[in-house]
Amino acid sequence: MESEIREQPDVLARNEARYLQVLADRLAGREFGHVLLVARGSSDNAALYLRYLIEVYLKIPVSLAAPSVLTMYGSKVKYRNCLGVGISQSGQAPDVIAVLKVLSEVGHFNAAFTNDADSPLAVLVDLHLDLRVGPERSIAATKTYSASLLACYQLVRALGAKLPPPVLPDDGWLELCRVAAEKSVDSLLNSSVVFALGRGFSFASAQETALKLIECALVPCKSYSSADFQHGPRAVADDDASAIVYGEVPENLAETGIRIIQAPDAGYGSDAPIREALFAQQLALAAARKRGLDPDQARNLEKITKTL
Amino acid sequence: MESEIREQPDVLARNEARYLQVLADRLAGREFGHVLLVARGSSDNAALYLRYLIEVYLKIPVSLAAPSVLTMYGSKVKYRNCLGVGISQSGQAPDVIAVLKVLSEVGHFNAAFTNDADSPLAVLVDLHLDLRVGPERSIAATKTYSASLLACYQLVRALGAKLPPPVLPDDGWLELCRVAAEKSVDSLLNSSVVFALGRGFSFASAQETALKLIECALVPCKSYSSADFQHGPRAVADDDASAIVYGEVPENLAETGIRIIQAPDAGYGSDAPIREALFAQQLALAAARKRGLDPDQARNLEKITKTL
Repeated sequence: MESEIREQPDVLARNEARYLQVLADRLAGREFGHVLLVARGSSDNAALYLRYLIEVYLKIPVSLAAPSVLTMYGSKVKYRNCLGVGISQSGQAPDVIAVLKVLSEVGHFNAAFTNDADSPLAVLVDLHLDLRVGPERSIAATKTYSASLLACYQLVRALGAKLPPPVLPDDGWLELCRVAAEKSVDSLLNSSVVFALGRGFSFASAQETALKLIECALVPCKSYSSADFQHGPRAVADDDASAIVYGEVPENLAETGIRIIQAPDAGYGSDAPIREALFAQQLALAAARKRGLDPDQARNLEKITKTL
Repeated sequence: MESEIREQPDVLARNEARYLQVLADRLAGREFGHVLLVARGSSDNAALYLRYLIEVYLKIPVSLAAPSVLTMYGSKVKYRNCLGVGISQSGQAPDVIAVLKVLSEVGHFNAAFTNDADSPLAVLVDLHLDLRVGPERSIAATKTYSASLLACYQLVRALGAKLPPPVLPDDGWLELCRVAAEKSVDSLLNSSVVFALGRGFSFASAQETALKLIECALVPCKSYSSADFQHGPRAVADDDASAIVYGEVPENLAETGIRIIQAPDAGYGSDAPIREALFAQQLALAAARKRGLDPDQARNLEKITKTL
């Protein structure tokens, strides 16, 4: 996991221009009335990021698919001029494939990001973007996650959003995240409950942080939109709890006694999650090591998830 | 909290016909191209239930609003012939109001379910359904949650879904849930991490269970779609963890050693969440009491959430 985390600055820099090129070649000038995103696990957090990007910069309504609407209940929702986007590093997730197949059958345009150009999903869709980040051996997604975020950002640019090229994480940022993670890890592991908070684009970072902490380090972590946290969950905020915060710390949170772990400042702009992902990963890695766990040998986890 | 949990069979039976009447009077014959749902906390779990109901029975695309798209970034998403539905027991949630105001300004039709007919949200919308469940004094939503679920079910019938009247929880079901909750509570409290799992309509029940356990009993609980759980989180499933399962137990889950708490069988049909909610509430209440906590005095929780 560590070596794959470290590859990210190179991997992202190498692919940035190609992602935009491939997407713009096929999408420029096309217009859509709706976007349906379908993904699972970490890829679902990338989809969440894409949802904010599309609604904020393109003003097209977006739904994150609830695959069981189709796979359990067989319902064919009536989308109008829809772009389907599937995200799956293996390209094998059966419910992602099932949803896009149905969209395709009724004439909608489908795109997918995968890290395997020969996978069933890559072959199925109208537009396949091959992430080409090299083999991902660690069980927790790292470079495929940040590459998927970069692909999301370039997709929105390809569809016409006036956005500058993203600021990609470099080796200095990687090191800054490592140091911040190691500084925070004791506080984290001494907490009875950990929250991950973020808003807007950075809500995806909060979600990914919770997933990584659970899957790599067995840390019970729950993510919330910083705004939503003021509801029920804030009741649990005391000096026995920690909150990992991306962006502004919610009003009065410090007064509850909760230990606040501020993520390194990635600027909280539309490209921030691409850099914030590295902190989430380093934090999960540091926590796993401190607890004597090997994040590359998760106990019950299969690399390719085949849920339907 | 306990007395309000016990009111539910009466409260729901008393309002069932009126909800359908009010909604059908204003909605029959109307057609929508999109539905946008906006809510926070427990109401957001009711909205999730409504999303499945609409997509399965009416085949209209649904999005759960990401309010910060509007409140942080000021983006006006272009919906087509949209029905906005806000759910807020107090009728005061500022981001629910903000989203529906924008929809209203561009000519879309808005509905809201609240428990206060004089609230800002009730006054704002084209169609207000007054839940009329009486004052809710406990901090954790109980009867307003199940009443919102009932309103969701009746909304979908009012919009033309061919569904029978829902089977409402009666006093026998309430008692069955209480007994099942008290039987499970030790296993729950001896776990390092608790998962709540459900699929389709019952995914809302899993979400609400996690929220209630956190806010009433300070139990770190994370909910997943049963399918999604096969991703990362399954790695944490061992004999130190518990999973509360609505519906079918995911394949091979028992083999991981995780302690499985099966929710009482509510039939897993489209009206099941209205009954499942009572188990979630009884479980949270039993866990709070066993830990010596008073669920009516949550430490940092405000009854009316005003987040923007």
